[in-house]
Amino acid sequence: MTRPVAALRSAYSEFIPLSLRWNDVDKYGHVNNAVHFQLFDTAVNNWLMKNGLFQSEAGPICLVVRQACDFFNEIQMNDHVEIGIGIKQIGTSSIVYAPALFTNDHISAAAQGDYIHVAIDRVTRRPTTLDDATKTVLTRLLLNNT
Amino acid sequence: MTRPVAALRSAYSEFIPLSLRWNDVDKYGHVNNAVHFQLFDTAVNNWLMKNGLFQSEAGPICLVVRQACDFFNEIQMNDHVEIGIGIKQIGTSSIVYAPALFTNDHISAAAQGDYIHVAIDRVTRRPTTLDDATKTVLTRLLLNNT
Amino acid sequence: MTRPVAALRSAYSEFIPLSLRWNDVDKYGHVNNAVHFQLFDTAVNNWLMKNGLFQSEAGPICLVVRQACDFFNEIQMNDHVEIGIGIKQIGTSSIVYAPALFTNDHISAAAQGDYIHVAIDRVTRRPTTLDDATKTVLTRLLLNNT
Amino acid sequence: MTRPVAALRSAYSEFIPLSLRWNDVDKYGHVNNAVHFQLFDTAVNNWLMKNGLFQSEAGPICLVVRQACDFFNEIQMNDHVEIGIGIKQIGTSSIVYAPALFTNDHISAAAQGDYIHVAIDRVTRRPTTLDDATKTVLTRLLLNNT
Repeated sequence: MTRPVAALRSAYSEFIPLSLRWNDVDKYGHVNNAVHFQLFDTAVNNWLMKNGLFQSEAGPICLVVRQACDFFNEIQMNDHVEIGIGIKQIGTSSIVYAPALFTNDHISAAAQGDYIHVAIDRVTRRPTTLDDATKTVLTRLLLNNT
Repeated sequence: MTRPVAALRSAYSEFIPLSLRWNDVDKYGHVNNAVHFQLFDTAVNNWLMKNGLFQSEAGPICLVVRQACDFFNEIQMNDHVEIGIGIKQIGTSSIVYAPALFTNDHISAAAQGDYIHVAIDRVTRRPTTLDDATKTVLTRLLLNNT
Repeated sequence: MTRPVAALRSAYSEFIPLSLRWNDVDKYGHVNNAVHFQLFDTAVNNWLMKNGLFQSEAGPICLVVRQACDFFNEIQMNDHVEIGIGIKQIGTSSIVYAPALFTNDHISAAAQGDYIHVAIDRVTRRPTTLDDATKTVLTRLLLNNT
Repeated sequence: MTRPVAALRSAYSEFIPLSLRWNDVDKYGHVNNAVHFQLFDTAVNNWLMKNGLFQSEAGPICLVVRQACDFFNEIQMNDHVEIGIGIKQIGTSSIVYAPALFTNDHISAAAQGDYIHVAIDRVTRRPTTLDDATKTVLTRLLLNNT
C-alpha cells in the first residue's frame, strides 16, 4: 500500500465552489467523510450540465461505478470549499475523473478522489460508446500531469 | 402559540422501525433535526408502497406540500427508532399524516410531525382527486383521538 | 386550516446563498423536501456564526425545538437558491425565525418555514436566558411586516 | 486497472442490516452512490460500539483516512440491505476494513468498499498505537480469504 500524495491546485484548471451544511458536521466536530462523495458527485455533474453533456432526454446517462477518496485534513463547516475537477482517462464508455477538495487558500488538497463514470443507455442500462463530440469536450479537463 | 404535547404510542396502530446512521449525528452529539423529516418521509412512503398505493407507473404521485416537527427529546445514534404513522384527515386530493418518532421503550414521542401529501398528476403536476379505493385503504390509518 | 401564503423577497433584508447537491434530487426529479430543512438550519447557523452569537466554547448553544416548511414550488438542482432569514419573535430563551427559500429571480418564496431555537446550557441541557447583547444583535433580523 | 470482483456472502461472518430512506434515491431512480459510504461508515461504527471499542470518553477515536467503493448493481429503496463487515489488515494505528453491501437473497455483493480507520488521540489529533486488547477484539473480523 503506497501512501497517497495530496494534489496541488496548480494541477487543476477547473474549480467548482460548493457550500457546506450544518448537518455535514458529525460528532467529531468535522465534516463527515461521506459528504466528500456528495461534493465530488455534485461537482462532476455540475460541470457536465454546464457543458451540455449527457443532458438529452433520450440520450445516455452516466452512472458512477467507482468512487474513492483519501482524506488528508479535517474540514470545518465554515471553511470555503472548492472542488477541482480533472480527467485522468477517457475510455470507450468510461470517464475517470480525479476530483480534489481544496479549502480556503491552501494549495494542496484536503481530500482527493477517484470517480469513474460509465455511460449507459437509459433503457437497456447497458454501457454505450462515448461519441466523438462528447469526447472532444471532455478532453478540456484532461490533467497534464498524469 | 400553544405548547405542543407529545403523542403517546397508544394513539398509533402502525409502526415502522428505521435505522439511524453515523452521519445523522451533528456536532452537538445528537441526531440532527433535519434527519427526522427524512424518517417521516421514509415511513409514509414505505407504508404507501407496502399497501400498493400510488405505485402505478402512470397513476398519480404524492408530493409533500408541508412538513413540520416538534422536537421533545434529543436522540442518540444507538437509540432504537420507530415511526408511528397515522392519518388525521383525508381530503379531496390531500392526506394529512401525523407521524411521531418513538425511541426504545418510551411511551411518549421524542418528536412529532405534521406531514401533508397532495396527489398530483405525474405529467400536468396538477392536483388530482383521490379515488375511493385509495381512500378506503388510507382509512385504516385514521387516528381515533383526533 | 388556512392556506399558507408565500413570503416576498421584499420582507427580508438578509439572504444567504447555498448550493444544491446532485443527491438532493429524489426520484420525482426535484429537490427532496427534507433538504429544505438542512438549508434553513445552515442559513440560520451561518448567520449566527458570522455575527459571533453562541460561538463561545463554554456558553449556551441553540437547539431546534421546532421546524416547519410549506412547499409552494418544486426546485431543480441547477436553480440558484438563496435563503432569506428573518426573526418573528425573540423570547426569554427562544428565537422564532421565519426562513424562506427563493430561487433565481422569483420574488415570492418557493418554500417557507418556521424555525425555533431555544438557548440551552451546554452541560445541563436546560433552557437559559438570552443575554441583552445577544438580543440586540438578533433584533437586526426582526421582520417589519409581522 | 484491474476489474474489481464482487465479494461473496460466504467471505463474511458479520452482517449489519440497515434501512434505506426515501431521499436516498436520486433522479436516476436508484440509491445514490454517496449513500453507500454512509452505510459502510454506520456499519463499522455500529460494530465498534456493540463491541465496546473506542467508546471511552477520554480514549482514542478513529478517523476515516480512506473510503472507496466499487458499484456492481443498482439498488432500489425497497431492497433489503445488509452490510457485511470484515477486516483485511490491522496495523500499528490503522484498521483496513472491507465492507460489502448485499441485497435481498443475492450471494454476491451489489457494492464493495475499502474503509481505513486511523486511531488518533482526541486532543492532539495525532495517530496513536492500537492496544493489544483492542487488536484482539478486531481479530474476530479478519477475513479468511485475503
